[in-house]
Amino acid sequence: MLIVMRPDGTSADLDAVLRHLECHGLAGSARTVSGCHVVAVDLPAGVPAPGAIDALPGVERVVLLRPRHPRAARGARPERTVVEVGGARVGGGGVTVLAGPCAVEGEDALEALAVRLRDAGADVLRGGAFKPRSSPYAFQGLGVRGLEILGRVGRRVGLPVVTEAIDEASLEAAAEHADLVQIGARNMQNYALLKRAGRIPRPVLLKRGMSATLEDLLLSAEYVLDAGNPRVVLCERGIRTFSDHSRYTLDLAIVPAVHERSHLPILVDPSHATGLRARVVPMALAAAAAGADGVLLEVHPDPPSALSDARQAIVPEEFAALTEVLRSLAALRATSREALT
Amino acid sequence: MLIVMRPDGTSADLDAVLRHLECHGLAGSARTVSGCHVVAVDLPAGVPAPGAIDALPGVERVVLLRPRHPRAARGARPERTVVEVGGARVGGGGVTVLAGPCAVEGEDALEALAVRLRDAGADVLRGGAFKPRSSPYAFQGLGVRGLEILGRVGRRVGLPVVTEAIDEASLEAAAEHADLVQIGARNMQNYALLKRAGRIPRPVLLKRGMSATLEDLLLSAEYVLDAGNPRVVLCERGIRTFSDHSRYTLDLAIVPAVHERSHLPILVDPSHATGLRARVVPMALAAAAAGADGVLLEVHPDPPSALSDARQAIVPEEFAALTEVLRSLAALRATSREALT
Amino acid sequence: MLIVMRPDGTSADLDAVLRHLECHGLAGSARTVSGCHVVAVDLPAGVPAPGAIDALPGVERVVLLRPRHPRAARGARPERTVVEVGGARVGGGGVTVLAGPCAVEGEDALEALAVRLRDAGADVLRGGAFKPRSSPYAFQGLGVRGLEILGRVGRRVGLPVVTEAIDEASLEAAAEHADLVQIGARNMQNYALLKRAGRIPRPVLLKRGMSATLEDLLLSAEYVLDAGNPRVVLCERGIRTFSDHSRYTLDLAIVPAVHERSHLPILVDPSHATGLRARVVPMALAAAAAGADGVLLEVHPDPPSALSDARQAIVPEEFAALTEVLRSLAALRATSREALT
Amino acid sequence: MLIVMRPDGTSADLDAVLRHLECHGLAGSARTVSGCHVVAVDLPAGVPAPGAIDALPGVERVVLLRPRHPRAARGARPERTVVEVGGARVGGGGVTVLAGPCAVEGEDALEALAVRLRDAGADVLRGGAFKPRSSPYAFQGLGVRGLEILGRVGRRVGLPVVTEAIDEASLEAAAEHADLVQIGARNMQNYALLKRAGRIPRPVLLKRGMSATLEDLLLSAEYVLDAGNPRVVLCERGIRTFSDHSRYTLDLAIVPAVHERSHLPILVDPSHATGLRARVVPMALAAAAAGADGVLLEVHPDPPSALSDARQAIVPEEFAALTEVLRSLAALRATSREALT
Repeated sequence: MLIVMRPDGTSADLDAVLRHLECHGLAGSARTVSGCHVVAVDLPAGVPAPGAIDALPGVERVVLLRPRHPRAARGARPERTVVEVGGARVGGGGVTVLAGPCAVEGEDALEALAVRLRDAGADVLRGGAFKPRSSPYAFQGLGVRGLEILGRVGRRVGLPVVTEAIDEASLEAAAEHADLVQIGARNMQNYALLKRAGRIPRPVLLKRGMSATLEDLLLSAEYVLDAGNPRVVLCERGIRTFSDHSRYTLDLAIVPAVHERSHLPILVDPSHATGLRARVVPMALAAAAAGADGVLLEVHPDPPSALSDARQAIVPEEFAALTEVLRSLAALRATSREALT
Repeated sequence: MLIVMRPDGTSADLDAVLRHLECHGLAGSARTVSGCHVVAVDLPAGVPAPGAIDALPGVERVVLLRPRHPRAARGARPERTVVEVGGARVGGGGVTVLAGPCAVEGEDALEALAVRLRDAGADVLRGGAFKPRSSPYAFQGLGVRGLEILGRVGRRVGLPVVTEAIDEASLEAAAEHADLVQIGARNMQNYALLKRAGRIPRPVLLKRGMSATLEDLLLSAEYVLDAGNPRVVLCERGIRTFSDHSRYTLDLAIVPAVHERSHLPILVDPSHATGLRARVVPMALAAAAAGADGVLLEVHPDPPSALSDARQAIVPEEFAALTEVLRSLAALRATSREALT
Repeated sequence: MLIVMRPDGTSADLDAVLRHLECHGLAGSARTVSGCHVVAVDLPAGVPAPGAIDALPGVERVVLLRPRHPRAARGARPERTVVEVGGARVGGGGVTVLAGPCAVEGEDALEALAVRLRDAGADVLRGGAFKPRSSPYAFQGLGVRGLEILGRVGRRVGLPVVTEAIDEASLEAAAEHADLVQIGARNMQNYALLKRAGRIPRPVLLKRGMSATLEDLLLSAEYVLDAGNPRVVLCERGIRTFSDHSRYTLDLAIVPAVHERSHLPILVDPSHATGLRARVVPMALAAAAAGADGVLLEVHPDPPSALSDARQAIVPEEFAALTEVLRSLAALRATSREALT
Repeated sequence: MLIVMRPDGTSADLDAVLRHLECHGLAGSARTVSGCHVVAVDLPAGVPAPGAIDALPGVERVVLLRPRHPRAARGARPERTVVEVGGARVGGGGVTVLAGPCAVEGEDALEALAVRLRDAGADVLRGGAFKPRSSPYAFQGLGVRGLEILGRVGRRVGLPVVTEAIDEASLEAAAEHADLVQIGARNMQNYALLKRAGRIPRPVLLKRGMSATLEDLLLSAEYVLDAGNPRVVLCERGIRTFSDHSRYTLDLAIVPAVHERSHLPILVDPSHATGLRARVVPMALAAAAAGADGVLLEVHPDPPSALSDARQAIVPEEFAALTEVLRSLAALRATSREALT
């Protein structure tokens, strides 16, 4: 840890910093650089930096030298994490495809769709049963009944399933019926839920909040990892910006950034990010080209009849064409990996 | 509701829209304006717009004519809502002051501080017992013990108290011990929690999420109102932007915007918004000048020893000076109200 | 144009709107939809909407039905614009590669680099002579001498060249020496410069400002088109957001959005967008996968010795590997185009 | 300057950094802190940090210890800058009021308005003659004729005047006719214009760009200061964010931040920031309460007939009521200054 004092910081300020460190059992070593006092502190690995140093008079800023999320950091698992989801794998170089309707609406319809998705190459079937909707008057999902439908359909068609949990009860139900449990963007900083997700016997799909930095996202993953669940998959789904040509701004550069700073795999959800059917295919391809470990896609046989997020669903024909190109892209990625790094 | 078709929308597209409306029991009336088809639909009050229209081919956009949050909207209560919190009031023209430490740390210290706050003019005592912290390794609050301390101190010094709930269990505990229950920014779209907050016998302080639009905020309030709790106080606490001179960007213009579009009162939290002690006083004054119904302030007798958010706490002396100016400002606001509107 | 009145708008408000339209020679037709007055106005093509309607009392909002940028809009040239740059082409389905150092530093070094870029497949040589730098103390470019060097090197190695203009004088000089003249992000709304760029006999590369919406960008292009220069190439180079893992946030979804709403081609600049050498290659591939008409890349033989933006330059070896994969990606894009649309 | 190496940086990386410093005539002193190499470099005052260090392998980041804008920094003039504008003053503790129409439209109308503004307490008359408009089809201002009108009216009513320059020619004209020359938000990073503004014999009003950080703003001011013009007034006019209840997001916390980090005065423009007449008065008051050195207000006798930005203009009656309250606020600010700091 480095503590940089303000140019107008006094030596009394500096002394107070050194005493504050001592109270926390730490030794600071001060020197003057370009006219500013700078204090270097050797923090033993695993010891978090004392929080209040930057509240001391004369402190300009504190520079941490180790990531605040040791378990999620790259250094924790140089070999990178590969997460098994039912029979599918996320991470390890491929482009895993998770697809399905935004919400589970009915068993027959879901099964018919799931068969088409599987045949076109989907690896995991997605479907929401507990839907976090911005309006209380919007369709909120079928709840546990939806989960049961999803679980049965997944087993019948032979696809592992992923679904979202929104509170303690739905988390337990999702852990019972699904192979992968999603924590949505709006709950990325619902720490009570994250702690509980750290204790379920299922991998967790953690979506980036729309105002989360990369560090925020990795700290939220740290909650799950620290609570005992090492199987975390991250997901970029767009952030809130002024840019209004699509619903959110898909921040694809986070994909190589995650691969540099963490060992966890990262998916991209172009459906929620763009909110527009015509943007989903190009953004799914872009995600794969950027190195994403997979994509999460909303597919509906008849979007205008969908009970939620109709505008962003692609149809099964588009999905089939897309997955074919994704496979070529994944192959191109594999063959060019060595040349590019 | 108006449905604007794309300039290249076909009449088949238009027919499909009209049929879709019919299926939902609605009649659309089409005309051509500036070369585009526009469909007008008389939506009976209280009937939400069908969600999937914008997924139909050829639809450029859907213009809603009524707010999506009828209970939170200005029209629902032209006389505006005044929320009673213990003996204090939020709304109705004054500047209510809610103040206290970020986190409850100990009973004696809290009581000593509370006495000073009360004597300087605080209306409500704040103190966190369940702290949502971005890092799992940061102090997470004293939990129920903290709530009990807060409740006892409030009673002893004669101040109503406000504290944050983060899940079902803490919500029930907070409703038992506190006069006002806060849903924090990170849980503003935790709809499961909002629904439960709609059923507690306490008013709710709903903080704006750092990426929430005004409509998002009012829709979240709508969850609480719709579930049966009419006592909602909103709070602006800064949004996430690129601007890096303070921790978040305090979006004060939301204060008059809320007063125009809703009947709910709105507080401002300059402590979390700026994250910097030296910015709290000017931003608290700015909030009052902008018309806020009150301010939420973090005060600590010795910020560098605070267990959380030390950098943004002001000291009791600053608080006393600030409240004195706030009172003058409130008086100025009261005398100039008529001239200014 | 549709004018939506507030729910509490009076009929006097409505009358004032209708009279205001009459004063501008327009006829409004009013009706009531869902309890609101809505006025439809047939605006003849090419007539801009009167600007001040939304300042009239009781007006909630004005909905424009035609793009504000008729010349830049998709409808103006259904066949799409292909811009010739020296012998190279931008638009028309391929992935044009524009590459070179951030700044022209010396003739021999530039020529050596240009040969390598050309041999690896670059289509256009880039190099800055007038550098807009955030600090007055940073290297500001070689000026006209840099332009001359760039022009000579381009001719010798057989590559067309692109360079940035920052004011009237540099615009004229750039138009003399370069095949494509860039207006940078910081000048995207320098309308005086745009008008002048509309009168030069060279195509213009217009970079998106870091806070520009898609409409802002197309309106800036409209300035150039309206002033008489039909050869405009757009460029996405990242926007300002809170996301801090790269310098700007590359908003790739603007690529299909531009292709939907405009006939102009669009490039992507992953170098300035990310500011980090290790992110350039994945984002260049993502741009191509998203459908970009080309990429703009900073390449330097020895980045740490570069006089500007050293951190984002890739080396010639990386460039060569990247262009090879870009060619495969372009081929994949070409073969899958039909299946995907 | 501190150079922090990556945890996985090698000693060869470290050596390269030290050699790179040597080549620039600098000595680095390395030590290991928390397992990372950290290099401290004593940069003589006034010597900018070498730019390319962060492009060297293994460098995590570079921490500058001195502001990049020495002339704009607080330390350069501890007594703070007060800018004389005609007979008016900006800075020094008061709330200067600059008011007038968005655009100069005609001489008689402007004079009638100017008389009312002066009588209500305006200190400076504003009026645009060269208007930077997002659409080429919008009213672009009366040009030099507008400047002449503004100058004559100012002299007749006894008010100094401010107007915007957008390029070299208008800058010279503005410097001839106006007492204060504005560089607008869209030109804040038009460095060619800033350099020229540094050589005019008039003070400069520099508006913050909608995506500028505080450092960007101060660096742009540095261009003007460094070119020889010490009379710079800053202005906050809203930034681009996702928040859509007003046109831009007024970032008022920049006011105390500027006062902390710079000696330059700062105005606030609530008219352009909010874009909505009903928000201007509360935000002007908030600006004054936050400590702004003045406000810039658009006033028009009949907003719906205004040729630009009609929606945000207040009428003279509102202006008169506002200035009266502003005076009370300024008085309150003066009396409470000591208690609050």
